[in-house]
Amino acid sequence: MSKYKAYFIDLDGTIYQGSKKFASGKRFIDRLKAANIPYLFVTNNSTKSPADVAANLTINHQIDTTIDQIYTSAMATADYLKQLATPQQTRVLVVGETGLEEALLDAGFDLVQDEHADFVVAALDRAFTYDKLMYATLAIQHGAKFIATNRDTNLPNERGMIPGAGAIVAAIETATQITPTVIAKPQTPIMTGALQKLKIAKEDVIMVGDNYNTDILAGINAGIDTLLVYSGLSTHDQIDQVAIKPTHEIESLDDWLV
Amino acid sequence: MSKYKAYFIDLDGTIYQGSKKFASGKRFIDRLKAANIPYLFVTNNSTKSPADVAANLTINHQIDTTIDQIYTSAMATADYLKQLATPQQTRVLVVGETGLEEALLDAGFDLVQDEHADFVVAALDRAFTYDKLMYATLAIQHGAKFIATNRDTNLPNERGMIPGAGAIVAAIETATQITPTVIAKPQTPIMTGALQKLKIAKEDVIMVGDNYNTDILAGINAGIDTLLVYSGLSTHDQIDQVAIKPTHEIESLDDWLV
Repeated sequence: MSKYKAYFIDLDGTIYQGSKKFASGKRFIDRLKAANIPYLFVTNNSTKSPADVAANLTINHQIDTTIDQIYTSAMATADYLKQLATPQQTRVLVVGETGLEEALLDAGFDLVQDEHADFVVAALDRAFTYDKLMYATLAIQHGAKFIATNRDTNLPNERGMIPGAGAIVAAIETATQITPTVIAKPQTPIMTGALQKLKIAKEDVIMVGDNYNTDILAGINAGIDTLLVYSGLSTHDQIDQVAIKPTHEIESLDDWLV
Repeated sequence: MSKYKAYFIDLDGTIYQGSKKFASGKRFIDRLKAANIPYLFVTNNSTKSPADVAANLTINHQIDTTIDQIYTSAMATADYLKQLATPQQTRVLVVGETGLEEALLDAGFDLVQDEHADFVVAALDRAFTYDKLMYATLAIQHGAKFIATNRDTNLPNERGMIPGAGAIVAAIETATQITPTVIAKPQTPIMTGALQKLKIAKEDVIMVGDNYNTDILAGINAGIDTLLVYSGLSTHDQIDQVAIKPTHEIESLDDWLV
């Protein structure tokens, strides 16, 4: 039915909501599988390894998923740095969690914990401290390039909307007066990396998500068609007011013929 | 000679520079003492107690100083909260150091370490952690009023320009989307508190400092005359470009007749 040869798909709010299952999410993936259409789950989360993300889908949501179907902002950051770094630039100061550290180690970088770094990568870090903030600030003042996985301001947990990567990035930005390169949605690097991972042209893929400000703008910014599903964050009222609409809008993934 | 009955005086860059003594600073204070003119050292520092600030001046800079001649942003914050709080509003979550905690305890507030707070006060905190950021964020989301001692982005130490209160404030602001009330220079509350402490009218006092963006703007914002001394941060080039000039400009405090 549809013209798309591959799908980029957001997770939270699109395929499930936290621990809540979306039956429509599983059915959507089942239809893609039946049609032999490749897809990649593209998530701004930097804290989890692709194995953890795949296991969550497989075990908790009954959506059988392999590691190569996952693309996190941590993986996109590692891919971006691999293309950017000279052979001598191997030292990365990570303000982030294990998912990010593992992705950078897997890509051949050395992790350092002081200001002698070629890159500072900031992300959600629930073990953030003033010392990390200080070393990141000093490293950037000394010339390290400043990268942020994402600038999501908050994430939900059982306590409420706790601080996200964006809060940590803002602290470093304020102390350095340097604006970081941002990797994840709505910025372009994660979409570029996802296209390269699936070896597909941007005209042949569609970005599916529930959040206009991240998922849909990421597609728009990268020149990729978009499908907004009203199962999560964005509302009709919000979309009525945006200048550039999603390519397609649906109430439920059940309404989409792959 | 001059018409001012009292002086508000900045410290770092004005009376000394870090551990470096300014002979002109000591001579200036000696002239004020000889003329029996009251003065108050007004500093954005929130981490030191007034006793520590007075001891530093007395011991390291040979400027005999008593506690009642010191007004820190921590003391100004405590004074501001005393006027703002109802009798039931006693719980303060401090993201800051001992100078701030002591000022608030002295003012009768209770310090809490979770989101059940009436006020969140953010400042420089070299023991800042993600948990403090999270509790501050949740408290403000639950209705606590957000106060910042100051928004200085950096402070010098032996390593370089390390992150200041402004970096910590920016993290909380990003996670809450709430702009804090700022107490210290260039904002007005610290000047209002200093006027009340000296029991003097704003027409009778002058604010002396080396930093246009904090000291001089604080005076301008509060309707207090200002004296810029080119011994620290601000340069002639900077002042050439500002719309509202200091009331007076001098190269050295030696050039000023009290």
